[in-house]
Amino acid sequence: MKTLNMAMIGAGRMGLAHARVLSGLAECRVVRVVDTLAQNAERVAVELGAKASTHLEDAFQPDVDAVIITTPTPTHAEVVEAAARAGKAIFVEKPIAESLEAGRRVVAAVERTGVPCQVGFQRRYDPAYVRAKEMIERGELGRLEGIRLVGRDPYLPKLDFLKTSGGLLVDMGIHDLDSARFLVGEVAEVYAVGGALAEPELKQYGLFDTAVATLRFESGAVGTLEVALRTAYGYDIRCEVLGEKGRIHIERDRRPDLTFYDERGGNFDRPRNFEQRFPEAYAAEMVAFARNLHAGKPLEPGVRDAWYSLRLAKAAQHALETGQVVGVKEFGGEL
Amino acid sequence: MKTLNMAMIGAGRMGLAHARVLSGLAECRVVRVVDTLAQNAERVAVELGAKASTHLEDAFQPDVDAVIITTPTPTHAEVVEAAARAGKAIFVEKPIAESLEAGRRVVAAVERTGVPCQVGFQRRYDPAYVRAKEMIERGELGRLEGIRLVGRDPYLPKLDFLKTSGGLLVDMGIHDLDSARFLVGEVAEVYAVGGALAEPELKQYGLFDTAVATLRFESGAVGTLEVALRTAYGYDIRCEVLGEKGRIHIERDRRPDLTFYDERGGNFDRPRNFEQRFPEAYAAEMVAFARNLHAGKPLEPGVRDAWYSLRLAKAAQHALETGQVVGVKEFGGEL
Amino acid sequence: MKTLNMAMIGAGRMGLAHARVLSGLAECRVVRVVDTLAQNAERVAVELGAKASTHLEDAFQPDVDAVIITTPTPTHAEVVEAAARAGKAIFVEKPIAESLEAGRRVVAAVERTGVPCQVGFQRRYDPAYVRAKEMIERGELGRLEGIRLVGRDPYLPKLDFLKTSGGLLVDMGIHDLDSARFLVGEVAEVYAVGGALAEPELKQYGLFDTAVATLRFESGAVGTLEVALRTAYGYDIRCEVLGEKGRIHIERDRRPDLTFYDERGGNFDRPRNFEQRFPEAYAAEMVAFARNLHAGKPLEPGVRDAWYSLRLAKAAQHALETGQVVGVKEFGGEL
Amino acid sequence: MKTLNMAMIGAGRMGLAHARVLSGLAECRVVRVVDTLAQNAERVAVELGAKASTHLEDAFQPDVDAVIITTPTPTHAEVVEAAARAGKAIFVEKPIAESLEAGRRVVAAVERTGVPCQVGFQRRYDPAYVRAKEMIERGELGRLEGIRLVGRDPYLPKLDFLKTSGGLLVDMGIHDLDSARFLVGEVAEVYAVGGALAEPELKQYGLFDTAVATLRFESGAVGTLEVALRTAYGYDIRCEVLGEKGRIHIERDRRPDLTFYDERGGNFDRPRNFEQRFPEAYAAEMVAFARNLHAGKPLEPGVRDAWYSLRLAKAAQHALETGQVVGVKEFGGEL
Repeated sequence: MKTLNMAMIGAGRMGLAHARVLSGLAECRVVRVVDTLAQNAERVAVELGAKASTHLEDAFQPDVDAVIITTPTPTHAEVVEAAARAGKAIFVEKPIAESLEAGRRVVAAVERTGVPCQVGFQRRYDPAYVRAKEMIERGELGRLEGIRLVGRDPYLPKLDFLKTSGGLLVDMGIHDLDSARFLVGEVAEVYAVGGALAEPELKQYGLFDTAVATLRFESGAVGTLEVALRTAYGYDIRCEVLGEKGRIHIERDRRPDLTFYDERGGNFDRPRNFEQRFPEAYAAEMVAFARNLHAGKPLEPGVRDAWYSLRLAKAAQHALETGQVVGVKEFGGEL
Repeated sequence: MKTLNMAMIGAGRMGLAHARVLSGLAECRVVRVVDTLAQNAERVAVELGAKASTHLEDAFQPDVDAVIITTPTPTHAEVVEAAARAGKAIFVEKPIAESLEAGRRVVAAVERTGVPCQVGFQRRYDPAYVRAKEMIERGELGRLEGIRLVGRDPYLPKLDFLKTSGGLLVDMGIHDLDSARFLVGEVAEVYAVGGALAEPELKQYGLFDTAVATLRFESGAVGTLEVALRTAYGYDIRCEVLGEKGRIHIERDRRPDLTFYDERGGNFDRPRNFEQRFPEAYAAEMVAFARNLHAGKPLEPGVRDAWYSLRLAKAAQHALETGQVVGVKEFGGEL
Repeated sequence: MKTLNMAMIGAGRMGLAHARVLSGLAECRVVRVVDTLAQNAERVAVELGAKASTHLEDAFQPDVDAVIITTPTPTHAEVVEAAARAGKAIFVEKPIAESLEAGRRVVAAVERTGVPCQVGFQRRYDPAYVRAKEMIERGELGRLEGIRLVGRDPYLPKLDFLKTSGGLLVDMGIHDLDSARFLVGEVAEVYAVGGALAEPELKQYGLFDTAVATLRFESGAVGTLEVALRTAYGYDIRCEVLGEKGRIHIERDRRPDLTFYDERGGNFDRPRNFEQRFPEAYAAEMVAFARNLHAGKPLEPGVRDAWYSLRLAKAAQHALETGQVVGVKEFGGEL
Repeated sequence: MKTLNMAMIGAGRMGLAHARVLSGLAECRVVRVVDTLAQNAERVAVELGAKASTHLEDAFQPDVDAVIITTPTPTHAEVVEAAARAGKAIFVEKPIAESLEAGRRVVAAVERTGVPCQVGFQRRYDPAYVRAKEMIERGELGRLEGIRLVGRDPYLPKLDFLKTSGGLLVDMGIHDLDSARFLVGEVAEVYAVGGALAEPELKQYGLFDTAVATLRFESGAVGTLEVALRTAYGYDIRCEVLGEKGRIHIERDRRPDLTFYDERGGNFDRPRNFEQRFPEAYAAEMVAFARNLHAGKPLEPGVRDAWYSLRLAKAAQHALETGQVVGVKEFGGEL
């Protein structure tokens, strides 16, 4: 088996999560870890047996085949551009950029240099979503009529992060909105309403921790989206696609496959975070990245695809903030 | 046990459904069945061992303690008013009237005459909804943050019915919207989008068979609603309440409690219509009607409560038809 | 609808359970309640609006069409014989008699007098068991290979009851063993092992509160049985039939259709006793009793069928008490 | 991360299954593959990038730290002994030997040489079994009262394999019986009955494809076991532990987390073989093997533990073949 030598750029929470998965995969070897904070870089590098550095250019050394970019969103565009110039294959966490304009620059840089680039919408690699996609493509649902998306995180991130995250529907809702595009198609129009229900203090900063939205697809199908930054009961990601011939329901309700029955009734553990919900997906997207690179096959999803998910997320966030029904194309334009 | 002597007014589909339940209940005896179509009245009367008639006044004879009104919605107001004048206790199917104005007349007639009157929102008597209400009132969810409602019917009604039904969100969505009020509270604002996805022909009549909506409650909580007139997979009613401390999920996924495993995997039967989903609720609302009448206790839900559910449903339908965000109070006024 | 006038003979726990169901059924009217304890008879009679008596012969008055026999098991034979002589239709709780010999007398009395007689194996009327039977008869499982039965009660009965109950596998296991016969066929051989695990004190009386058994059917199929008098988590009845083409699994895991998710995970209520598990079955067996009587149709299951279930239960109990593999036919003989 | 260099000995079905898992694990590197059939060795070696050989001694070269023994059961004793003499760390598939006597030699060889040795009871590494063990050890079930084990394979192995496999309860049932020992403790007595129900032709060879058994534990707890070589509906492994305070139920009912609802009801995919049921467990046992070796920690389960599981399986098989109740200690003696 061929091993892909990688540099991880960004060793924060998401970098650590990827590192844990990558450390167990035979096909991926992280040889360098770069973070502007030396202690972050060191912590992950030690765990992975890699070299730590605080200099971005170290990620582009000759011993590196590909980079994993898990820096904060505002830096994505710049780092992807640098990696593309350096001719490295790229895996970048979602969203590809902070703004649609920066996203356009990312797409241009990747397409100009021709480096392979995959974006971290990991649900596209979850076994249930993969199977849903196959069923839809085989026509088992018939004409698609709607989708229902639920995305709920267990804990509020820090206020500082929230202020720069781009907003609830961009930073978090983009996963669900990307699933909507992946499974049903392009969205024409979005409306959203929400509030600071879990943490009223967020209101003074114009931030939302909860939002519900309606989606109207170009095909005429309609959908709902519910996103919340905090629940009392753990991480909760659901997706339901409704078609002419039936309905697909995706939900991981328990972890592991154990139910405990006592005087209170039946009880089961649930996934408490994305690492517990999507372990197969995080591994699968990296294995696919390594294998497709070695085989010279296209990477999925690419930056162009990811830009359209960003456009949709930005439109939804705009609807949430303005209380207006937003036309997605009118709002965000084209690539 | 005391038996309540009843006249059933309206022997169509809903009358027949109630008749089947009533025929097995020791506390309720239907002694008269009235329908403008003699054959409808006869069919149900034979099944119940009752007298059939085509004259409304026969429902108000001295041998009748209470009337069950299951006539078409446009006639509800008039029939309730007549029953109230006759001094009979009333059970009337939802919605209480075709228009908010007619609904106001119903409330006035009932309150003026003082006859007991219960409205047929049967979900309020389903064991799962009853338990949800108890848990909410005991504070087990903490502060309520949201609700998710799904209501899907298995078969398209006839076009003639649809044209006079008041619209998808009034005729059908009112059940879900009443659940929202019952469990979470009053809705301040509603937005909806939909289409004629299952039956495109409906479009030319300005009718919808599918709608999704967002709800903003007076408390600040938010919710989504999905209503469809037809699914390929049977009847589907779900309700989920999200609170500070946890989440309630109500769904009847299988009927009966049997799973069949074969080479295709696991398979189970689902409820295919409201009679299979809500048998306990239809019986319980009638038993409560009979027992509370005999005990002189108030009936639940009453006409006043039902008028507010109608107001919400009308507002939602208006949002659906106009594409506007609709303020519920501004739209419908007060009683 | 025709109403069947009934006398209830025996107003203890099981009589009370039936009374609660019967009180709500329009087709059944209990007009007399007989119990040797006047206060028992009174309590149930008041609830049912019936006449109470302590004299058995009052159950056979002309105003009575049928009797419901829910006296202690040791009296079943004698009471059934008396009712048969009086020419009354009979519903008798399981088991039909304390001993196989007494059971033979019951069968003889019923067949000699020709009175209709139904035995209270209510699971045969539960929607899931009914559907399982239909699937098996339609050949959906192919050749049957096995069965797995679990029967667990929530609370230990009183010691006095246990001493005269005939033993764990007769009093309680007979329900599961009757299901085995109903769904798969006759059992050739049984082996059992158990103990006084929930209440060690039972050991000194030679009593068991827990037993597991293997079944070998005449067809060659094999099965397991687990019976326990007490669990910490409520009532638990499961049945699984394994065939060449698939597997049926029957289990009522939750009550009502509500799941609560909180920081501990997912939680649901379970049935805590037979009244919560089998409400439809208790009502359905009585409605079938009344309707089949009125229609002159045979009653199911009859005394002959019930005697074979008793024979199997006695053989299983013998296996449990002696530690021997027991041939059912050799042990119990034929009718 | 340290990588363990391994030689795989035996490249048949089970070897291939392990190879697929090992190929993705960063901590394990298979450098040599040995099989008496050159084509088997080649096939797996190519997949793993390892050297193929048909000579056992090649597995003991200096570049090898540890061996994975997945040869047919009758050869286990001899190969383990050779590996122990060579001083290699050992992972050997269950059962450790064909006979109790050969098993004693295996234990002696391992303990004499002091090589670390782990036996492939992978369920002990499945997340659900791990959690069950933890709950039991923390006392959440209170005193244990019983266990129910179900083990069903999807396809009949070849007749030639079956004839030399040691019997249904040794080759296959040993997994369930090891789980019984792992979770509840030692078994005192076993009884079993079965047949050739799925494939009647097996009968002429004295073989069983289906068996049910009762277990009496030394603690007094009782249990049932059901094992079948073939089902129509896929692989099915269940385990249920009953205690004074509650019940644990382990079952993987669906794969992946997707339900499809159509006009037939609800449908879900199930695991079809051990690779689909236990992917986490197969990876976890190898990762534990590599990590514990590097850390100098004891391996679990060891040969001594595995011998007692073999003793229990042999006793159960003896019960099945003779129709006798078998005392486990009397039957198999001690180490």
